[in-house]
Amino acid sequence: MDQTMFKKIILITNNYTKVISDTLNTVISLLEKRKIEVFLDKYCAELLPGSHHKRVNSDTFGDGRYDLAIAIGGDGTMLRAAHILANHDIPLLGINRGRLGFLADIPANSVEPMLEKILDGDFVEDVRFQLHCQVLRNGKVLFETDAFNDVIIQKGNIGKLIEFETYINGNYVHSQRGDGIIVASPTGSTAYALSGGGPIIHPALDALLLVPICPHTLSNRPIVIDGNSRVEIVMKESKIEHASLSCDGEVICDLVEADRLSVYKKDRKIRLIHPSNYDHYSVLRAKLAWG
Amino acid sequence: MDQTMFKKIILITNNYTKVISDTLNTVISLLEKRKIEVFLDKYCAELLPGSHHKRVNSDTFGDGRYDLAIAIGGDGTMLRAAHILANHDIPLLGINRGRLGFLADIPANSVEPMLEKILDGDFVEDVRFQLHCQVLRNGKVLFETDAFNDVIIQKGNIGKLIEFETYINGNYVHSQRGDGIIVASPTGSTAYALSGGGPIIHPALDALLLVPICPHTLSNRPIVIDGNSRVEIVMKESKIEHASLSCDGEVICDLVEADRLSVYKKDRKIRLIHPSNYDHYSVLRAKLAWG
Amino acid sequence: MDQTMFKKIILITNNYTKVISDTLNTVISLLEKRKIEVFLDKYCAELLPGSHHKRVNSDTFGDGRYDLAIAIGGDGTMLRAAHILANHDIPLLGINRGRLGFLADIPANSVEPMLEKILDGDFVEDVRFQLHCQVLRNGKVLFETDAFNDVIIQKGNIGKLIEFETYINGNYVHSQRGDGIIVASPTGSTAYALSGGGPIIHPALDALLLVPICPHTLSNRPIVIDGNSRVEIVMKESKIEHASLSCDGEVICDLVEADRLSVYKKDRKIRLIHPSNYDHYSVLRAKLAWG
Amino acid sequence: MDQTMFKKIILITNNYTKVISDTLNTVISLLEKRKIEVFLDKYCAELLPGSHHKRVNSDTFGDGRYDLAIAIGGDGTMLRAAHILANHDIPLLGINRGRLGFLADIPANSVEPMLEKILDGDFVEDVRFQLHCQVLRNGKVLFETDAFNDVIIQKGNIGKLIEFETYINGNYVHSQRGDGIIVASPTGSTAYALSGGGPIIHPALDALLLVPICPHTLSNRPIVIDGNSRVEIVMKESKIEHASLSCDGEVICDLVEADRLSVYKKDRKIRLIHPSNYDHYSVLRAKLAWG
Repeated sequence: MDQTMFKKIILITNNYTKVISDTLNTVISLLEKRKIEVFLDKYCAELLPGSHHKRVNSDTFGDGRYDLAIAIGGDGTMLRAAHILANHDIPLLGINRGRLGFLADIPANSVEPMLEKILDGDFVEDVRFQLHCQVLRNGKVLFETDAFNDVIIQKGNIGKLIEFETYINGNYVHSQRGDGIIVASPTGSTAYALSGGGPIIHPALDALLLVPICPHTLSNRPIVIDGNSRVEIVMKESKIEHASLSCDGEVICDLVEADRLSVYKKDRKIRLIHPSNYDHYSVLRAKLAWG
Repeated sequence: MDQTMFKKIILITNNYTKVISDTLNTVISLLEKRKIEVFLDKYCAELLPGSHHKRVNSDTFGDGRYDLAIAIGGDGTMLRAAHILANHDIPLLGINRGRLGFLADIPANSVEPMLEKILDGDFVEDVRFQLHCQVLRNGKVLFETDAFNDVIIQKGNIGKLIEFETYINGNYVHSQRGDGIIVASPTGSTAYALSGGGPIIHPALDALLLVPICPHTLSNRPIVIDGNSRVEIVMKESKIEHASLSCDGEVICDLVEADRLSVYKKDRKIRLIHPSNYDHYSVLRAKLAWG
Repeated sequence: MDQTMFKKIILITNNYTKVISDTLNTVISLLEKRKIEVFLDKYCAELLPGSHHKRVNSDTFGDGRYDLAIAIGGDGTMLRAAHILANHDIPLLGINRGRLGFLADIPANSVEPMLEKILDGDFVEDVRFQLHCQVLRNGKVLFETDAFNDVIIQKGNIGKLIEFETYINGNYVHSQRGDGIIVASPTGSTAYALSGGGPIIHPALDALLLVPICPHTLSNRPIVIDGNSRVEIVMKESKIEHASLSCDGEVICDLVEADRLSVYKKDRKIRLIHPSNYDHYSVLRAKLAWG
Repeated sequence: MDQTMFKKIILITNNYTKVISDTLNTVISLLEKRKIEVFLDKYCAELLPGSHHKRVNSDTFGDGRYDLAIAIGGDGTMLRAAHILANHDIPLLGINRGRLGFLADIPANSVEPMLEKILDGDFVEDVRFQLHCQVLRNGKVLFETDAFNDVIIQKGNIGKLIEFETYINGNYVHSQRGDGIIVASPTGSTAYALSGGGPIIHPALDALLLVPICPHTLSNRPIVIDGNSRVEIVMKESKIEHASLSCDGEVICDLVEADRLSVYKKDRKIRLIHPSNYDHYSVLRAKLAWG
């Protein structure tokens, strides 16, 4: 018997290398053998120009037609996939073709056996929350977007500090001078925030993490707060025309004096699919060379 | 009218200095004027040898007779008070006669007006969880106690590292060599854990914090996990006869190879009483010299 | 008697605020009373449009005519002055009109008595070395300049890491991914390098400091090497078109793949003049809020 | 031809494991083949009870009779050997039978070829300075000893902070509360000091490193000073009866209020012998898992 709960699967990538197309073909063969309907995102479609599989774009995701998305690449690909799926309730599985990843956890050399087991229903679901952010300028929403890992304000001119005030749920926290600030989800705590000196937060904890980047005041330390908090950062002084906002590594916009960034938990979540023997601490041990 | 919800109040301290007895007398006068019944702990009774007020000891706390405890001293006094009250549902107010404190927040020079307002009902309650820890040796409970800030395993011989394994909810996290490890509550995140490189955790977050002390592996970073987790530390190797366990700064016992420490949230909480204008971030700004 | 070794003094600033012009007037009056010849840099001349004092520009510095430069402002002004004086053997005194400074150490409210004493010969000299840096592209020198505090390579696109290799005296040290790297003099160890996690280096130590900025590999730690070393950073990968080079906070140029930055000690030094009771550790205590 | 400059060689270890005695036998066979005279320290002699080689003890070292010492073990063995050789001008070679070492750099599986080359004269010498420390109590020298890596003052009671003042060349630096302080040589910068947050100092730099251990004040950062400085630490307050002094991991004595520790460079050096292709940065890369 070869029944599966995943009847329609979207394939997602974010680059055009040979290793990706090889893995893509392996995955498609396996899915076809199981009579699973395959859909290709823009990159996958371009990697397989002669393919008869349907292209999809994110406009069509809202109707509940897709049962699973498989991202092939590294953590960057997973971030792209998360953005595509941000507003849709489609579970996401990652096949790792990049550096060892926190998010893409099926190793390229075990795609077939591990994917078979997952399609057989032998998997665990790992629900992660996303961040939503808004930039307000003169009282109006200038930009609004989602992030899976982090929302970052950082100086754009490498020679100068930026200055900003932080508020949590409307309460003034502090005024900081430095290179910037990272607001991260638990998922993002092992990304850039870790390089900035932040703690590792278990992905299931309902918390937000604030990490100052090279702060001028040495006692400006990372802060962990309830996940239902609203974080606001207000840019100070006219010198800061060079501050930029980025989400998950994509630059969103420049920020000027008095711009107000709000970050809070998005109402929709990302459902990651892992092999059933998934062990978050084992991933940490491997990635951080513990022991 | 001078009615108050606090009719029976216990006074607690942990030292015998003149500034403490002065403040103690100020507090007692104020309480007597309001016809509040005053009870003295061991230290307070010794500071006021001729006092007619009743002594109390913690054996009598369980019967709901006391409405409030006032600790006079610094954060160390608050920790002692928290231990005394650990199993009793008595709110705790701190009058600060030590260094600027995170916990004892009524400044000595404003005792009277601030205490009057609190007794009038103008206050906020701030519920903090406590930690409970157990040491298992050969399968039996060797020691068991509570902590408000932190449970710490640390080398006893300053020349040697200790080695131990960490488990969270039964899952192996890592084996570490270093000076030790801190398991802290959010309340304890601004105590020793902060000196060890940990983040600041908002006291209302339901989380536990693990901070390695001078770890040999530089990627052994602080970890923040769900407050309902059970943390276990297992001592390795016979060399470690010099490891010690301490809770809130009090040494509990020495640890030997294969000893197993469990730390988890205690079911009872500590209810701190603050002036109604209490602002946690303002305390952080003052204590950490932000800005 | 009012003889002084400082007969010709240059006044330097870098902004046009009222507090600067007030202090400038105070200084000029004092110098005129002593019959010292006063020379104004561009900014000072513009602040005092009707002044009869001569303007100077750095082209005329090489002839040994000037005995002292006085910079009025903050540490940024001192950096500007150091750049102007980089190739000339003119001692430099700083009057602080900015935030508390590491370099400008005459407080604005004590200008007169302290300046009198210094002009009387009651001072100490504090010789600091400068850095020199070169950017080589395709084997040719693209840019070349000096720095007093630090030479910094940093990502220009806030969303992306940069990657580079470090060599010391021709020996390969490591390949790093991260936000960048700071090469600092001991003087610069208390500037940006400190925010990046570097140690405090005594200014008289003949050493260079390398501090990785938010490195991806957590064991990439600050490195301190002999002051006579040559540090080379080679940019990797074509993705890095957004890396920038800055010296003492001024952006010098963008860097592309295979660009090679060399940093080494400049042969000429900066001679800082301090009041004779100058105490470096006292400055550190004040700036870093120790104790 | 089989001439060598090393005619009399001392073998040193610090434990009794089978791997040590195996390597010891390998080394002795090789030395005997070359007609080199072999001398055994206490541990080696006990490992080889029937050996005809002479025992030595450190009393006999001063007469210039020995040309080389070979330590077999890990970095701990090298530290023991350095202590034995502290006052004698005997070069030291390390064969690594422990964890990957910074000091013992001949891997156990290459002993023969590498040792042959070194005995043939194909090696580099790496001169490292040692530290000397004195404890003064009531004006008298209480203890005096040497250290290769570090001199450490640390709290003995894990529950309490210690407090002390630091002076450099008689100048007051700061008063600190915390777990203690490390005074390290450049050699020691990659030992405990690194776990405490210190920088990596090139072993050839003439510098001393001070690293605060879990300091209460977050801006108390590592300090690097000239190698010819005298560091003094003065213990404060009667609470500190539990502070201990250790050198290279060996506890020397307890410290009480007003005890004064002096640390400065010892006049005698340790001459490490490395294979001629020795590369300090390569050792760092391997030990710290860079790249």
